[in-house]
Amino acid sequence: MFVIMAYDINVERVTKVLHIGRRYLNWVQNSLLEGELTKAQFARLKADLCKIIDVEQDSVVFYVLRQEQYLERQILGLDKGGQTMMI
Amino acid sequence: MFVIMAYDINVERVTKVLHIGRRYLNWVQNSLLEGELTKAQFARLKADLCKIIDVEQDSVVFYVLRQEQYLERQILGLDKGGQTMMI
Repeated sequence: MFVIMAYDINVERVTKVLHIGRRYLNWVQNSLLEGELTKAQFARLKADLCKIIDVEQDSVVFYVLRQEQYLERQILGLDKGGQTMMI
Repeated sequence: MFVIMAYDINVERVTKVLHIGRRYLNWVQNSLLEGELTKAQFARLKADLCKIIDVEQDSVVFYVLRQEQYLERQILGLDKGGQTMMI
């Protein structure tokens, strides 16, 4: 499945969340990652995040598509993820 | 079409970008909006953003789907957009 992950996390936990996200997905830009995952990988990603986030303060939104072909990506300005990886 | 908009914008311009985004889309969480747009509305949204952003510093990523039915949304933690609108 193709997964887009966008997070809005308190500054105390944001670096840990980014590190977990990057274990599974490709970095696109600040607070945004995407990639192809198996069902098991997606479950592990969510389990790892649940250990870190504070569910009363933080938010992680996933958009899940069975196939990437249904999706068109358009970028205005910099393609930050397309450059050498940063952060 | 269903449009997800995620932005990574220099602090000097971020409030303007949020205001433009909210004219067309629903706020989901920090730097993330989504909603149903016509082709003409989507073109206007991009044209409005192009007047504001610095293409050498800023990045706006759009994910576009013909139909929302192909998409599943999952949230860990707070459903910020589902609360009374803020910002």
